[in-house]
Amino acid sequence: MNKEILNCLESMRASSPLVHCITNYVVMGVSANALLAAGASPLMAHAQEEMDDLLKIVSALVLNIGTLDKYWVESMHVAAEFARKYNKPVVLDPVGAGASKFRTSTSLDILKKHDIAVVRGNASEIMALGGDAGLTKGVDSIYGSTEALDYAKNLAKQFNTTVSVSGEVDIITDGETVFNVFGGNPIMTKVTGMGCSATAITAACVVTASSPLIGASAGMALMAEAGENAAKQSSGPGSFLPLFLDNLYTMDMEKAAARVRKV
Amino acid sequence: MNKEILNCLESMRASSPLVHCITNYVVMGVSANALLAAGASPLMAHAQEEMDDLLKIVSALVLNIGTLDKYWVESMHVAAEFARKYNKPVVLDPVGAGASKFRTSTSLDILKKHDIAVVRGNASEIMALGGDAGLTKGVDSIYGSTEALDYAKNLAKQFNTTVSVSGEVDIITDGETVFNVFGGNPIMTKVTGMGCSATAITAACVVTASSPLIGASAGMALMAEAGENAAKQSSGPGSFLPLFLDNLYTMDMEKAAARVRKV
Amino acid sequence: MNKEILNCLESMRASSPLVHCITNYVVMGVSANALLAAGASPLMAHAQEEMDDLLKIVSALVLNIGTLDKYWVESMHVAAEFARKYNKPVVLDPVGAGASKFRTSTSLDILKKHDIAVVRGNASEIMALGGDAGLTKGVDSIYGSTEALDYAKNLAKQFNTTVSVSGEVDIITDGETVFNVFGGNPIMTKVTGMGCSATAITAACVVTASSPLIGASAGMALMAEAGENAAKQSSGPGSFLPLFLDNLYTMDMEKAAARVRKV
Repeated sequence: MNKEILNCLESMRASSPLVHCITNYVVMGVSANALLAAGASPLMAHAQEEMDDLLKIVSALVLNIGTLDKYWVESMHVAAEFARKYNKPVVLDPVGAGASKFRTSTSLDILKKHDIAVVRGNASEIMALGGDAGLTKGVDSIYGSTEALDYAKNLAKQFNTTVSVSGEVDIITDGETVFNVFGGNPIMTKVTGMGCSATAITAACVVTASSPLIGASAGMALMAEAGENAAKQSSGPGSFLPLFLDNLYTMDMEKAAARVRKV
Repeated sequence: MNKEILNCLESMRASSPLVHCITNYVVMGVSANALLAAGASPLMAHAQEEMDDLLKIVSALVLNIGTLDKYWVESMHVAAEFARKYNKPVVLDPVGAGASKFRTSTSLDILKKHDIAVVRGNASEIMALGGDAGLTKGVDSIYGSTEALDYAKNLAKQFNTTVSVSGEVDIITDGETVFNVFGGNPIMTKVTGMGCSATAITAACVVTASSPLIGASAGMALMAEAGENAAKQSSGPGSFLPLFLDNLYTMDMEKAAARVRKV
Repeated sequence: MNKEILNCLESMRASSPLVHCITNYVVMGVSANALLAAGASPLMAHAQEEMDDLLKIVSALVLNIGTLDKYWVESMHVAAEFARKYNKPVVLDPVGAGASKFRTSTSLDILKKHDIAVVRGNASEIMALGGDAGLTKGVDSIYGSTEALDYAKNLAKQFNTTVSVSGEVDIITDGETVFNVFGGNPIMTKVTGMGCSATAITAACVVTASSPLIGASAGMALMAEAGENAAKQSSGPGSFLPLFLDNLYTMDMEKAAARVRKV
């Protein structure tokens, strides 16, 4: 399995997949930089007029509801339809699901109507989608990833998708198999956009993966490796971010791939 | 009073208040990072559908008009109504007031219709709200903070609020008492989002303060301490920003609190 | 000519022109920081209600279609009308032209209806505007700048404008004269917002230039000098960005000016 992860990462970097992100305003810059540093290419666009053209040429689509509103949600549905038409994988980040009914219902609506390759969120968000609303503190999790395991499995089965839960130990499951990714550092919760960057990178990795489970795990492995190294070199969340991007850029893909273990 | 400031800062960090920001696109990332580094949590959201849910769970609300438009201004009014209902403090940043009638009138309209705990702006913005339009160079001040003292006092009295004016020396007044905050560095005017971060951090501090005057002063004290230290360590505005966040994160709260003096 | 470039740069820094940007969400922060570091002032605003007021007080206007939608495109047209009325130079960045018909037609429509001082893009974008659609990989170029030379000349003649093409060697032409700018570093393609920052800085330089050709070349000279120096000092795209801003801030204007050569 670690060989499959490594193949996925090396193919991703070699092919530099173009990842179309309909994402939130807060993290657009850092997500774009994370994609570039990891070896992919970002494209941020939300106008419905160009969804057909863009979904034709991109390799994957990210739907991130961090600063959702009515128009952007409509754009996400339009984009997901074209993603199905052109057979491009879609990754959903249900930012803040559980913090408002609007976020929870939008996320579930996207899951019901479209083929979602991977749902990537924190424990609170995944638990909220699994039926426990009101568990989210804004956009930050108040639960550890291990508490979300059963929710993640159920959600994966219910919507025939793969669920990736970030936390002290990351959990990735297609409802049957469960992978863990070890690494990272708590400082990553003090830097905005780390989760959203994980989602964007996950989308890039799914493009060249043998399965969404492998792709989602490969994406979290990159985050864990870069994050752990950057934390050692930094003196706070400010200096962490540039170092994190540098570490993504100079990534030892074998070390990253070794961070994934089957449970 | 410095003991009250210190209590406010320590309580803020201990309780990690969730600050809901309806703020401008330019500074969302840096404001979120500044809140996280200071010990608070950010939530950026503007959709009117979720304002009721979100205002229930957040600790404070920031209204920042930096890239305002009709929909976002409406969202600010909706959010401020729910803030009143759920008794959450509101901090207004009248970015660019005076640069356009739209900005000045929107700011005054918010002040007239809602309970605003603190107005935090630069000298030109505060002077524009106090009646002297046309004093603002875009979003940067062309006046020093001391020139704005009388305007700040009058504005505080007129709208029963606290006014916080950033500058070489910061001025914070509830219309009667005046506090100064010493520190910072001119390089902060060469980095976008410093004022907006000050506003967000002010909101976090107001949550745990004995009064908006204490909270607003505590917020500016954090900015002054982190800014002055970061400026010494940096070699320009680019290296300043990561260092500023690191200094916020490793802040000596006593040193920060000591920066406030009663005039 | 290098003397004219130097004059332009020194006047720009001395007068600190206020540059109004209607630009994309991804790069607003980095564009604002680049303008500030270079010595100019940023203003980001898109509400049509304030375009008249703002175009009166700013020195130049940037139209950047990176995350365009219907409302923002309308705002660009409104802003460009007031720019004509108040005689302020307009710089267009056709981000992603060629990637979608919406982007290509919006860019051409702006060129047809308004006086555009400079069009600044990458090779693929300029070639797409010159008639070769489908050449753009998202927002990144798949062509080198030299391949775009004839397209740039034709576009400049057709719309009576100056075209600035970024690449390994930058090309700037008014349709007759061609300038090259040497420098920079490939790492700049791994950092989001470098092109958009070039556009914003170009607008600042056009304000104090003897011609758009001189101003556009001066802007690219600043980018080339800061980028080349920062790349030498950095260990990846993350550490590059702060260093790039520091180098813009401490710029040796004579060295920058020397980077421009007449072809």
